Amino acid sequence: MDNVIKIFDSTLRDGAQAAGISFSLEDKLNVVKALDDLGVSYIEAGNPGSNPKDMEFFAKVKDFDLKNARLAAFCSTRRKDSTPEADDSLSSALSSGAPVLVVVGKASAFQVENVLEVSLAENLAMIRETMRYLKEQGREVIFDAEHFFDGYNDNPEYALTAIKAAEEGGADTIVLCETNGGMLPADVFRIVGEAAKAVSIPLGIHCHNDAGCAVANSLAAVRAGATHVQGTYLGFGERCGNANLSTIIPNLQLKMGMRCIPDENIEKLTSTASDIADIANITIESGMPYVGTSAFAHKGGMHASGVVKASSSFEHIDPAAVGNFRRFLASEVAGRATILQKIQQFDKTITRDDPSVAKTLAKLKELEYEGWQFESADASFELLVRRINGSYNPHFELIHCKAISEQPHKDDDGAFAAVKVRVDGKVEMTAAEGNGPVNAIDAALRKSLEVFYPTLSSVHLIDYKVRVLESGEATGAKVRVLIASTDGQRTWTTVGVSADIIEASWLALRDSIEYKLLCDEQRA
Amino acid sequence: MDNVIKIFDSTLRDGAQAAGISFSLEDKLNVVKALDDLGVSYIEAGNPGSNPKDMEFFAKVKDFDLKNARLAAFCSTRRKDSTPEADDSLSSALSSGAPVLVVVGKASAFQVENVLEVSLAENLAMIRETMRYLKEQGREVIFDAEHFFDGYNDNPEYALTAIKAAEEGGADTIVLCETNGGMLPADVFRIVGEAAKAVSIPLGIHCHNDAGCAVANSLAAVRAGATHVQGTYLGFGERCGNANLSTIIPNLQLKMGMRCIPDENIEKLTSTASDIADIANITIESGMPYVGTSAFAHKGGMHASGVVKASSSFEHIDPAAVGNFRRFLASEVAGRATILQKIQQFDKTITRDDPSVAKTLAKLKELEYEGWQFESADASFELLVRRINGSYNPHFELIHCKAISEQPHKDDDGAFAAVKVRVDGKVEMTAAEGNGPVNAIDAALRKSLEVFYPTLSSVHLIDYKVRVLESGEATGAKVRVLIASTDGQRTWTTVGVSADIIEASWLALRDSIEYKLLCDEQRA
Repeated sequence: MDNVIKIFDSTLRDGAQAAGISFSLEDKLNVVKALDDLGVSYIEAGNPGSNPKDMEFFAKVKDFDLKNARLAAFCSTRRKDSTPEADDSLSSALSSGAPVLVVVGKASAFQVENVLEVSLAENLAMIRETMRYLKEQGREVIFDAEHFFDGYNDNPEYALTAIKAAEEGGADTIVLCETNGGMLPADVFRIVGEAAKAVSIPLGIHCHNDAGCAVANSLAAVRAGATHVQGTYLGFGERCGNANLSTIIPNLQLKMGMRCIPDENIEKLTSTASDIADIANITIESGMPYVGTSAFAHKGGMHASGVVKASSSFEHIDPAAVGNFRRFLASEVAGRATILQKIQQFDKTITRDDPSVAKTLAKLKELEYEGWQFESADASFELLVRRINGSYNPHFELIHCKAISEQPHKDDDGAFAAVKVRVDGKVEMTAAEGNGPVNAIDAALRKSLEVFYPTLSSVHLIDYKVRVLESGEATGAKVRVLIASTDGQRTWTTVGVSADIIEASWLALRDSIEYKLLCDEQRA
Repeated sequence: MDNVIKIFDSTLRDGAQAAGISFSLEDKLNVVKALDDLGVSYIEAGNPGSNPKDMEFFAKVKDFDLKNARLAAFCSTRRKDSTPEADDSLSSALSSGAPVLVVVGKASAFQVENVLEVSLAENLAMIRETMRYLKEQGREVIFDAEHFFDGYNDNPEYALTAIKAAEEGGADTIVLCETNGGMLPADVFRIVGEAAKAVSIPLGIHCHNDAGCAVANSLAAVRAGATHVQGTYLGFGERCGNANLSTIIPNLQLKMGMRCIPDENIEKLTSTASDIADIANITIESGMPYVGTSAFAHKGGMHASGVVKASSSFEHIDPAAVGNFRRFLASEVAGRATILQKIQQFDKTITRDDPSVAKTLAKLKELEYEGWQFESADASFELLVRRINGSYNPHFELIHCKAISEQPHKDDDGAFAAVKVRVDGKVEMTAAEGNGPVNAIDAALRKSLEVFYPTLSSVHLIDYKVRVLESGEATGAKVRVLIASTDGQRTWTTVGVSADIIEASWLALRDSIEYKLLCDEQRA
């Protein structure tokens, strides 16, 4: 056995069934480029029979010079009581020009009789004849055996007969589909083993994640003899999603000794994930194995110090192998090692025994007890450390800020803020409106400070999050505000906590501006 | 074998290691209530030796009358070259009063020598003596064998010796920890099998999700003989998270014939997930198996019609079994029945063909598009329906409300609100202070209305939650405010949405008061 596994990505077909996902023509072309560049074997890119946009896509993609992947179009077995030649949907699939055609057909006797509503024999003929016809047209043909696993459980003989019909018709590969996603790995292993005894052409696996086992089920199928694995790159798909290829590829290649993509491309796994997430306009779950931003993040003090001593302590692989990297989170459960690592990210001169390390840790515990949280607020963390060790002077002083909001709203702007600041002995006062008091304060504050610091005009806020702490105290409860800002070149996050949402927002706004001014100063 | 699996939830301990998760004391008590109500066997709630907040928690939780769960506190084996009696961290764990103590110790020779930096023999003594000491104090003792799996791969003999030391010391249960999360199910199955041969006390499993296999690994361990499964209810935890118990429990109980929680509680799985997500202030991934909002959502036309013909086509279980339900995305037919059910909860005279049902559905779609959400705001939902069908007249009119907040705070009360209301042609104006503008408006509004409606003096707010919608628009983004109120006899929740947090809060406050007055009227 040469241990080669063909990876078949269906992000553009089955993945597009996910709630909230839709791809433009341009998006689809970009996904094809990213996946081909990574090195998957097949990219299933649409269903030309059911979607006119897909026809246009296949016409355009013909000009691409793909390095690794073959393009696949999806279609179904011929309609009942007809011929493949007379089937419009098969004609569309053929005229797409895709070198690979994926044909879905039913492998479950229950489904054939109750949902498709044809005889068991006619379904076998539909499979066999469709395979034969498409092979005669010179295409690579993959048979997707829908409902194979629940079909096998109900009526094993028919499920095996259905895939044998595909083999007889000349299919190149048979893919066993775990269509309703509820199977567990031990059953998948056993049933794939039975299928492998029944046919002699290559077998593939197509899993869904309804029991949280899509990755493990795919690996179990490979152990049982499958050499072709279908999934979507980030795991999105209908219901609970499809098998996540960004997890399966490194599991197979780094842990099971299989070869899925060129070895030198394994380190592109993380950047490919970001590319596809950007195209699909989704955020990758931070904890996604291998490619998530938290996949190698350490918070617990014991864990962080363990990683520093021996990275294998809490890292199953070297994050760099998949193009990801290690992060340390600042938190009360963090120990000295984590805090030091974080401090050294902006000041390498501070060493383990510097008194500011212990002081920072103590202050952090105190502040977190009050509801502050710095792990996602790197900029506030840096300002905190600099306030402690004295390497920072405020760039402005707030003399006064008054925000007034009125209900019912008289017009679009329900709030008004007046701000008075002092910089180097000079006082500036101004006011601004906003659609709420925080928005108004933000506008007034920046307006007044731009007089002194013109670079602030490039700063704008990109995210504002509010979390009520101890919500049982109702409107008197503490709130934590997180603000993300950008100046177009970098982004940073700051935090504020108070029982008054206006004060909490003010504290985070202040840090946002101070951080920008600090960075400008250091660059100058 | 009686097929009983003990479920051990570590949401409050290992789960709190996740990036972005932090629990207040009140949050922790609420999580304990939710998990006990569901029926897990153990709730690990903190590490009293390392965190002063946890000590306070254990003091408070003693008054709880738990129905199903035992509380556990986390600690480590004694320090090297010392005695358990002299170990502060063990004293803290004991003085927490927790009936169950979880002791983490190392089962990997590599870790013992290179990270812990003690001799192999001393580590065994640390395990054995700590077990013995804690058992002498009359507690149930669980040994968490950290790094058991990678330890076994490096040096199987030492890993087994370490767990035997725990057995010799008197541990009640040994939990095999897949600490760095990179193991695959076949290896977990094999290694747990070896451990089961080496010791005769119950074995547990603790998995992380770094290879995307935490659920499957936990199931593999149960197949190999483990009878205790650790995880966090929604799977959150450091890096890629812990084994997700909301997936594991139904897999074990509905598919593998094991008994984890009382059978009648399986249908609470989904509501428990929402409760814990609300407390942790996170959004459950929509595709989370069993409990996610999309777990049984059908988008593809073929799939939706398949489900109508035979639900097993694309549903691995009946969604109602776990308290979830089937959704057809963008389908009004599915909506009407649900809405009618909700309306009949307060007005049984409204039937399916009443025009207000269709009007409510249309209004709901419009409002949900704008970010409103009535699922957890039943009182606002009732007011919405009554506004639509005309069975409701407002009890007061807000003429004007002005809230002023000042920074920096001059004293405890940073905000002030003036409110003018009209009831039956009479005008009342008053003002109040608060620690923020919302708190001040709340105080002023109730003060002015109590003149007309004395029963309002019994109302107070018990919960106030803010969620930023479309957070990319920063301080101009829309926010959703949820307010829970009580009059001592019942509690109700109302919602408000606006780009202005003050307006959103005002809308929710208004509904809270209107709902109380409506209830008083109906009872009169």
